[in-house]
Amino acid sequence: MEKMNQIIYELKRTLGDDAVIVGEKIGDRVVSYIDHNPMTAKAILLPRSTEEIVAALKICQTHAQPLVPQGGRTNLARSSFTEASDIALSLERMNAIEDVDVTNRTITVQAGATLQQVQEAANQHNLFFPLDMGSRGSCTIGGNIATNAGGPRVLRYGSMRNLVLGLEAVLPDGTVISSLNKMLKNNTGYDLKQLFIGSEGTLGIVSRAVLRLWEKPQSIITVLVDVASFAQVIQFLRQAQQHLGSVLSSFEVMKRNYFQTIIQAANIRSPLPVEPAYYVLLETMGLDRELDFEYVGKLLDESLEQGLITYPVVAQTKAQRDELWFIRDNSEVIGNQYDPVFSFDVSLPISSMEKWLAQLEQNLDEAFEDAHCFMFGHVGDCNLHLMICGDSLTPADKQAVDDMVYGLVVSFGGSVSAEHGIGLDKKHILPMSRNEPELWLMHQLKGLLDPKNILNPGKVLG
Amino acid sequence: MEKMNQIIYELKRTLGDDAVIVGEKIGDRVVSYIDHNPMTAKAILLPRSTEEIVAALKICQTHAQPLVPQGGRTNLARSSFTEASDIALSLERMNAIEDVDVTNRTITVQAGATLQQVQEAANQHNLFFPLDMGSRGSCTIGGNIATNAGGPRVLRYGSMRNLVLGLEAVLPDGTVISSLNKMLKNNTGYDLKQLFIGSEGTLGIVSRAVLRLWEKPQSIITVLVDVASFAQVIQFLRQAQQHLGSVLSSFEVMKRNYFQTIIQAANIRSPLPVEPAYYVLLETMGLDRELDFEYVGKLLDESLEQGLITYPVVAQTKAQRDELWFIRDNSEVIGNQYDPVFSFDVSLPISSMEKWLAQLEQNLDEAFEDAHCFMFGHVGDCNLHLMICGDSLTPADKQAVDDMVYGLVVSFGGSVSAEHGIGLDKKHILPMSRNEPELWLMHQLKGLLDPKNILNPGKVLG
Repeated sequence: MEKMNQIIYELKRTLGDDAVIVGEKIGDRVVSYIDHNPMTAKAILLPRSTEEIVAALKICQTHAQPLVPQGGRTNLARSSFTEASDIALSLERMNAIEDVDVTNRTITVQAGATLQQVQEAANQHNLFFPLDMGSRGSCTIGGNIATNAGGPRVLRYGSMRNLVLGLEAVLPDGTVISSLNKMLKNNTGYDLKQLFIGSEGTLGIVSRAVLRLWEKPQSIITVLVDVASFAQVIQFLRQAQQHLGSVLSSFEVMKRNYFQTIIQAANIRSPLPVEPAYYVLLETMGLDRELDFEYVGKLLDESLEQGLITYPVVAQTKAQRDELWFIRDNSEVIGNQYDPVFSFDVSLPISSMEKWLAQLEQNLDEAFEDAHCFMFGHVGDCNLHLMICGDSLTPADKQAVDDMVYGLVVSFGGSVSAEHGIGLDKKHILPMSRNEPELWLMHQLKGLLDPKNILNPGKVLG
Repeated sequence: MEKMNQIIYELKRTLGDDAVIVGEKIGDRVVSYIDHNPMTAKAILLPRSTEEIVAALKICQTHAQPLVPQGGRTNLARSSFTEASDIALSLERMNAIEDVDVTNRTITVQAGATLQQVQEAANQHNLFFPLDMGSRGSCTIGGNIATNAGGPRVLRYGSMRNLVLGLEAVLPDGTVISSLNKMLKNNTGYDLKQLFIGSEGTLGIVSRAVLRLWEKPQSIITVLVDVASFAQVIQFLRQAQQHLGSVLSSFEVMKRNYFQTIIQAANIRSPLPVEPAYYVLLETMGLDRELDFEYVGKLLDESLEQGLITYPVVAQTKAQRDELWFIRDNSEVIGNQYDPVFSFDVSLPISSMEKWLAQLEQNLDEAFEDAHCFMFGHVGDCNLHLMICGDSLTPADKQAVDDMVYGLVVSFGGSVSAEHGIGLDKKHILPMSRNEPELWLMHQLKGLLDPKNILNPGKVLG
């Protein structure tokens, strides 16, 4: 207690009283986007600049005080969770859009800017930042970088790692690694920014970033189709890639039970007159509506002719498009209907998906009386999401369901986290996806950059 | 001498006599693609497997023996140069294409496979590996990874870093870091492969890799246009990006003196009836020839109307396309006409290029009587190449010209290496592009992974 008071005293003296939240006010914040319990921590720091992050880290380093960087707290693996003994460092005050460079097509931002702020700033200059996800209004660029965020357009634009040209990060000892490169090609020594992308705030705190911008799509075409089997989903994906190439920006699959549950709960009339085994939602982002329609038309004609699909529905208005995406995105409906719901974010080689799912469903049927396996996801990115639930399932079944899902994922060559990261929730299963030498090297890197283990300790690595 | 014999003895005993070249046979090999002097080294190792690389590294580690990994020895910054006291490790026997996975669109290869082998293997399956460069028949995938190779299609497909899904690398102590991921999304802990991409063989030896494949372009359109000023080149680039989006695969610029020198030397009749200040060679890679022509047609119509260009020439045959690329690629003609030629590979924010070039040319004119500055490059990737020469220039002027070029590059916000890397030739100027904390962290990483400094010592870092 003595010690904590000394740290808080030093932090307040250095950052100012208003930048150090303590006491009851901490509980005014919820733990996360999905966990609405009050947050607990020894303090929450609100630095206004990279210099203040440096100052805070130096104080914490001196006292070996654990520090947890926080963006929008929307991560689904508890990457930014705080214990009562942790100090949180929120980037929320560092949310400036510093520069939009139209000629070089870059945007330079502080890490606390939300994804939506960045999307809108790009849009104002008739440019486009392609990363997107439901939490866009809350999640921050720093968090997107720390978790190498994905979403539904990775197929076309890559994940966050591919969208970052330069960044600035503060190491646990207060060293500022400023690599704010703006150029597409720059091979001058080691690409240090890669250390901080996807390492979930365990190696450094991302403070600023330069992101790559693209041409703003002038034409978006959204199509829903029915597909009779998973093998045909894959065939249709291949065909879509052949016809649409890089104009194809999303290729999402939904199993019938997922699609039907969502539309029934939301009281939406199905856009299709049939109830196929799988629904595919595909979207193109191009620069010429007329030409894009020709591309999409050729794909649909060929797929219809081959019997791969029977009822393609092309969204005719923004409202129709929004409705199709609402169905895809609104998985929380399932959370409202069942309790518990065991959710999964895994990746698999596309060629293994069908057999993996069939085996999993068989195993679930054998183990539980009425288990439902709701499946949807970014099939073109090798990324599936599952929600497993049923009236007979209880919280006590979590371990058995986890073992079943992850065991099969690994035996089919997949990985236990596709886009949500490891955080606190998956660190016990990280060794299922990474081998001994890989884990050893990760620990070596952590030891090198954070020898006192003060930065987001206990996340990702044990 | 005693010590060396012991190492050679151990290496021969472990790898076999035929896998350890010593003595005069070493000089049968040239230093590199551009330096045809005989190579010198204590030995050249030719391992056949990852296990043999491990064995070789363990022996070298025990004896603190410097080891230089070699691919096709085509690097232009002397990344794979050997001193007489070094042992070279060539991956040439590890050149297998292990697997082409059509459904997942990946290719798994040993690191000694040439770029051309990979391009051809993909092509046989109607898929496409987009990395390309003039040395494709000699350069290897391991070298492409170690140098984060670029080339003329980075604009569309990214550099090598973006094309690698997984890799296997051997650390100096013989630890095998095998991360042969095949999936587009995989966020399970630190992305260790990034350490080995672009670190020029100083942190580990890349032994195998999984690469991402794309749809094979069904239509390639190649266009040469005249542009009156660099400002208009940039305007035309922006227009091309707006009209063509991701179908645009290359956007190359050539200054008049470069273009004219090449066509005169090669006795090619200019495809254009004018001699503009700049030539732009642009190429699209799409999936539908008819639609791509519409896209390109709209761009050219608009640019003609606005007076940005006056004589667009669209290649009508493969021979015409090859001739246009021959002009762009054949910079060695200048090397045949002048001696010395000081060559540069730099990157600059696109918005700084014009002023940078004007200032550089003015400074060159002031310092030298007849300096020519031949300029060409991947303007869309922020990457320009220069060849500076003139009858009055002598090898003694190298330092002055280097200082002039790099000094201006840095003052205009650029970097001293765009795609060729640092190797031996640029390590003295690396601190111009990277700050103290960055260099400190690079040394920390090198110290962590290669504490005895045996792997490609003296390259990249001092």
